[in-house]
Amino acid sequence: MNEFEIIKTFFRHQPVHRKDVILGSGDDCALVKIPPDQQLAISIDTFISGVHFPEDSLAYDIAYKALAVNLSDLAAMGAEPAWFTCALTIPNVDENWLKNFAAGLFDLANLYQLKLIGGDLTRGHLSITIGIHGFVPNGLALRRDGAKIGDAIYLSKKPGAAAYALKLLKQQKNIPAEFLDKFNRPKPEIELGLALRGKAHSAIDISDGLVGDLNHILESSNVGASIYLDKLILMPELEKEIDLILTGGDDYGLCFTGPENLIIPDHQIYCIGQIEAKPGLRIYQPNGELYKSLSAGYQHF
Amino acid sequence: MNEFEIIKTFFRHQPVHRKDVILGSGDDCALVKIPPDQQLAISIDTFISGVHFPEDSLAYDIAYKALAVNLSDLAAMGAEPAWFTCALTIPNVDENWLKNFAAGLFDLANLYQLKLIGGDLTRGHLSITIGIHGFVPNGLALRRDGAKIGDAIYLSKKPGAAAYALKLLKQQKNIPAEFLDKFNRPKPEIELGLALRGKAHSAIDISDGLVGDLNHILESSNVGASIYLDKLILMPELEKEIDLILTGGDDYGLCFTGPENLIIPDHQIYCIGQIEAKPGLRIYQPNGELYKSLSAGYQHF
Repeated sequence: MNEFEIIKTFFRHQPVHRKDVILGSGDDCALVKIPPDQQLAISIDTFISGVHFPEDSLAYDIAYKALAVNLSDLAAMGAEPAWFTCALTIPNVDENWLKNFAAGLFDLANLYQLKLIGGDLTRGHLSITIGIHGFVPNGLALRRDGAKIGDAIYLSKKPGAAAYALKLLKQQKNIPAEFLDKFNRPKPEIELGLALRGKAHSAIDISDGLVGDLNHILESSNVGASIYLDKLILMPELEKEIDLILTGGDDYGLCFTGPENLIIPDHQIYCIGQIEAKPGLRIYQPNGELYKSLSAGYQHF
Repeated sequence: MNEFEIIKTFFRHQPVHRKDVILGSGDDCALVKIPPDQQLAISIDTFISGVHFPEDSLAYDIAYKALAVNLSDLAAMGAEPAWFTCALTIPNVDENWLKNFAAGLFDLANLYQLKLIGGDLTRGHLSITIGIHGFVPNGLALRRDGAKIGDAIYLSKKPGAAAYALKLLKQQKNIPAEFLDKFNRPKPEIELGLALRGKAHSAIDISDGLVGDLNHILESSNVGASIYLDKLILMPELEKEIDLILTGGDDYGLCFTGPENLIIPDHQIYCIGQIEAKPGLRIYQPNGELYKSLSAGYQHF
């Protein structure tokens, strides 16, 4: 099968039809239109075998996670998914692998009425680059630079689960299904992102670890923060894995700031600290002392 | 230097400012807005070392060509460049290489007021994936499916030059500067694409070779065509390189169809044949006989 046959066979039959797609895959560019009063949120992320996922990952999981990671960027902006492009590089043509890859890609995309509008297929070391596009009403995007002194800091997920799964995986230990699922198929927090419009003051998704990503909010907003370990250790398995909780990547939950005692219907959120005027991030132990040992944020690079 | 330092140092200082960019690089997504009555053209292309360019190419040329190839997709739609994202994978951190790469990228982008609005930096085999976005007024995009029986077929460039340079390069022969330049720094036909709005009936850019790409127009438009070798051999160096002319990739000129005797002010164009009802592509030799020996279109994949 050549490039065009592969695309036709595996990537042209998505049961999602959007009126805003004038022209989908198959020309030099796709043509789309944007609703009035909406801004377009755009992101791109590359996902490389052996760097971002273990080389023996299932094709379904690779596609699912590559797209989930990109959807998570839309979630962190409070954007509604619209379209995506997918540049896929594969070492060889394995029809079964491609079938499963497409299944993982479209199973997730279809959930959000996210339409594949273009792509590229090349030969080389396995990697996937996805460009994603979503809508957000003028002025309602959740940005990193909006945190205010006195804001409470929230998480949407118990942190560290994905990093814990990766640690067990590297040690070739048995991984509880719950953790493996969080690592392989992170659920992008699209619904929560939409619910946070007009409520949260700032947001980011946790891809590189809580400390690194929260620091992006602090630097962009020119503020500091205190967070508390007893509010972060939410899973008994992770009681002794403080560094994983603080710096483990791959959770793809949202970290956001907003008024105290925020309630988001249908979503459980965890308050872990507050935004303060004093620059820097302070992490407190249950005994009130500062927690010091800390590696830097997880570096995919 | 880590990922964030590299991005800050080399990729955050582009002297292009656009009012339609609400939020550029540095958040989970960029935020942009689209003018009313315009559609958005979107494309993505990956460019891999050793596949799409020789491994010893200069960083400047790699960036320039990766972006030119994407701009060429906008040109082929008649779209006006607006923004791009760049996912870069590099094997190691070489500050001089990165400086030259950024120079090639921005020298070309700045020409078109094309703004870098996001990206991703990972470590691995050298590759560049660019997502590109441009505007085209409702209904004026140049598509592949609009060729009409009786249309003349035009090229914007003398075909085969880039493939000829690559052939000499592979043979380690001396390459005339004119050809090397066409191979390393193809000029995207943005201005011509804009000039063709409302005039051409269909268009495509020649990335995979004339025959392969013209066939895309024929299939999409459900028509056939005849073209003539004596109108295609436009450079004396290529008189004996018919297959390169017909199937050599990397030229990134436009192939388009429209009324006979079309004149596009300020642009030289070459009429090479006409669209016909009879399906298939017929290539005629100067003696009137059909030309038969023909490899398939150039396959990057």
